[in-house]
Amino acid sequence: MSTGSDVDPAEETIFTWGAPPLKFGAGASDEIGFDMAQFGVERVLVLTDPGVAALGIPQRVAENLKRYGITAEVFDGVHIEPSDAAFERAVEYARAQGPWDGFVAVGGGSAIDTAKAVNLLTSCSGELMDYVNKPIGRAEVPPHQLKPLVAVPTTAGTGAESTAMCVLDVLSMKVKTGISHWRLRPTLAVVDPLLTMSLPPEVTASAGMDIVCHALESYTAKWYGDSGRRKPEERVTYCGSNPVSDLWCERALELIAKSFRRAVHGGAEDVEARTDMMMAATFAGMGFGNSGVHIPHANGYPIAGMVKDYRPAGYPQDEPMVPHGQAVSLTAPEAFRFSFPSAPERHLRAAELLAPRTERLPDPVEQLPQVLVDLMRDIGIPNGIGAVGYGESDVPDLVPGTMKQQRLLSTCPRPVGEEEIERILLRSVNNW
Amino acid sequence: MSTGSDVDPAEETIFTWGAPPLKFGAGASDEIGFDMAQFGVERVLVLTDPGVAALGIPQRVAENLKRYGITAEVFDGVHIEPSDAAFERAVEYARAQGPWDGFVAVGGGSAIDTAKAVNLLTSCSGELMDYVNKPIGRAEVPPHQLKPLVAVPTTAGTGAESTAMCVLDVLSMKVKTGISHWRLRPTLAVVDPLLTMSLPPEVTASAGMDIVCHALESYTAKWYGDSGRRKPEERVTYCGSNPVSDLWCERALELIAKSFRRAVHGGAEDVEARTDMMMAATFAGMGFGNSGVHIPHANGYPIAGMVKDYRPAGYPQDEPMVPHGQAVSLTAPEAFRFSFPSAPERHLRAAELLAPRTERLPDPVEQLPQVLVDLMRDIGIPNGIGAVGYGESDVPDLVPGTMKQQRLLSTCPRPVGEEEIERILLRSVNNW
Repeated sequence: MSTGSDVDPAEETIFTWGAPPLKFGAGASDEIGFDMAQFGVERVLVLTDPGVAALGIPQRVAENLKRYGITAEVFDGVHIEPSDAAFERAVEYARAQGPWDGFVAVGGGSAIDTAKAVNLLTSCSGELMDYVNKPIGRAEVPPHQLKPLVAVPTTAGTGAESTAMCVLDVLSMKVKTGISHWRLRPTLAVVDPLLTMSLPPEVTASAGMDIVCHALESYTAKWYGDSGRRKPEERVTYCGSNPVSDLWCERALELIAKSFRRAVHGGAEDVEARTDMMMAATFAGMGFGNSGVHIPHANGYPIAGMVKDYRPAGYPQDEPMVPHGQAVSLTAPEAFRFSFPSAPERHLRAAELLAPRTERLPDPVEQLPQVLVDLMRDIGIPNGIGAVGYGESDVPDLVPGTMKQQRLLSTCPRPVGEEEIERILLRSVNNW
Repeated sequence: MSTGSDVDPAEETIFTWGAPPLKFGAGASDEIGFDMAQFGVERVLVLTDPGVAALGIPQRVAENLKRYGITAEVFDGVHIEPSDAAFERAVEYARAQGPWDGFVAVGGGSAIDTAKAVNLLTSCSGELMDYVNKPIGRAEVPPHQLKPLVAVPTTAGTGAESTAMCVLDVLSMKVKTGISHWRLRPTLAVVDPLLTMSLPPEVTASAGMDIVCHALESYTAKWYGDSGRRKPEERVTYCGSNPVSDLWCERALELIAKSFRRAVHGGAEDVEARTDMMMAATFAGMGFGNSGVHIPHANGYPIAGMVKDYRPAGYPQDEPMVPHGQAVSLTAPEAFRFSFPSAPERHLRAAELLAPRTERLPDPVEQLPQVLVDLMRDIGIPNGIGAVGYGESDVPDLVPGTMKQQRLLSTCPRPVGEEEIERILLRSVNNW
């Protein structure tokens, strides 16, 4: 088609991008009955976790659906940080109680990701491992369109309402992996900041750091054009940073700069700060969901997965956990020291967007780490992996968990091996 | 759902936004066979106009489809600036030769808009006027999903690949109207800058001014929150400027600033400038396709529709025409003088994005008009409606054509009536 003459055939010139339609604003979640009715559905399953169910939000969604003549049931058995077993329990429930014409996910990333898997495995034949990414699963392609899925986030964090993937722990292999395919992307994202007004400061801080890392990792990810030319069938969901993901991530960082501290320290009253944070989360999702994330997220998996006895304030105290947003942010300052040489201007620009009034440090490598550390201290993020229970002697045990995340590490703008990851983890025991 | 306590129930707090998945870059149009195969289609109609067909592009798309086992035929009967009769001829052809499992539109806005209408009227029952906007048509809602439609623009201009509407002339009523519904949005936008390398400078200039107007009109459109609260069933495709449309339009203006003059004056050789212009067109479409346009586009309809004997260089000379991009830009400087008081900061910011190195004029009202006039002079756009054949005495005849565009004028940030339109047209006979 193309004249081709100006383009090196070995160089990648193409990027891909996708996002769900968005309904955004205070009260948006009161219109889900109308929105679902547009898809001609009659019977809808609302998926949520017990914590969100206790707030009454999914039940109100179900009532709203019923007002439009849609039969709706609530499944409140979503597990936080879901495993393959948790996904399968939800699928089993949905299959037993089905068939369903559509789904609404109400909650954080866990509820939205579980709903993606349930939608896939009730819309298409096959079992979970058929679709899970290689080499863990068989990475089969969903053979046709899934049912309508409306995603309603209740935290400003994961951006899962925007992305075309779901993450799960495979228990037998002690590894975090996922299913990635554009057909998994929600049919509609309904983002209502009022659903987040009552989030405790600690949850606001942790989830917000997930946004920060999404935006920064996407922005510093390997540039799409720096890969070799892909054939159409080789294109992946995460294609590297690109002009569209940059656009979203830059704006997400500006919103974070404006409103993150306010949302943590006075979020119960501050609709504007909550609105900015919800927008930042969704925007970062519109970005990284196409470009990818790298070292901080890869490190976050073993940091969360191998938790000893850390029990964070603001979260349920029944079992130890490192919240996802903490886990991904604790090695971010050191990771961005490592990635700095790959794209100095991008790291400096990101620092400037995140903290516009910070003066330039003599050593430019330190600019983004310093801005991050200032933010993390201000909002009460633990001081390094040491503060969530890991010492230097634990680092060798964490490294293999990171190295399993090759899907993420391949988006890193510099080649990264065990040695580099070990050094980053060691230097992240204390961040200040 | 919402606590609601902080929100004035009379005030709009919600905006909506949607965009097609995007495959962007040099050579992207060589992958359409693969992309269409993902939708499981067997028989695809490629729609184009005779000018684009003469370049061989649609035929190469059809060959690419065949390589993936898809039967493909080319319909090259798309009419530029299509009428209801032209839409109906295309629909008649598609119905007679159908059924089709999917469509590819290759061309400018006319080809893509015709394909949207053909897709609608072969996927759903009913006739054209059932779906056309009120009060011309019955504005019925497409009852279900349409067939897959891949949109492949061959000019950097309309952004029709991103939008959920199609525009047509209704001949019997001498009025331009459209069909607007999110189901019309293409399933995939394939944007390949290499397809635009051979566009003549005059076409590059005119189409590029359409981008400029999309971005500026969207950016200065009435803010979504300044409308009264809508019920879910009252929400419209064009919801006014909003944080997402702003994002796209700001970046489109930056790309225009960087590359528009280069694309006009040396576009045959300059892949980077062509790439920036294609990106600007798509980005502006991702913006205005959700927010809307206002006076310049509303004026553009009678300016194009009532053409006398203007025959622009670079275009076919067989019949008189005012190219769309010229028609919409000729009253833009004066329209932005009029809209300035509604949002002075936005007008100044837009001027700065479009011409970052221009010094501030003593009268801020003049900043954006001056930047626009500088650009239009540099790229050879005619000097006002006088240069395309209209004198002051023609203005009263043009006004009613503008006033019929209430759908667009309602997005204007200031109330606008016949008197204001008349004044804007009179002051646009010469722009410099």
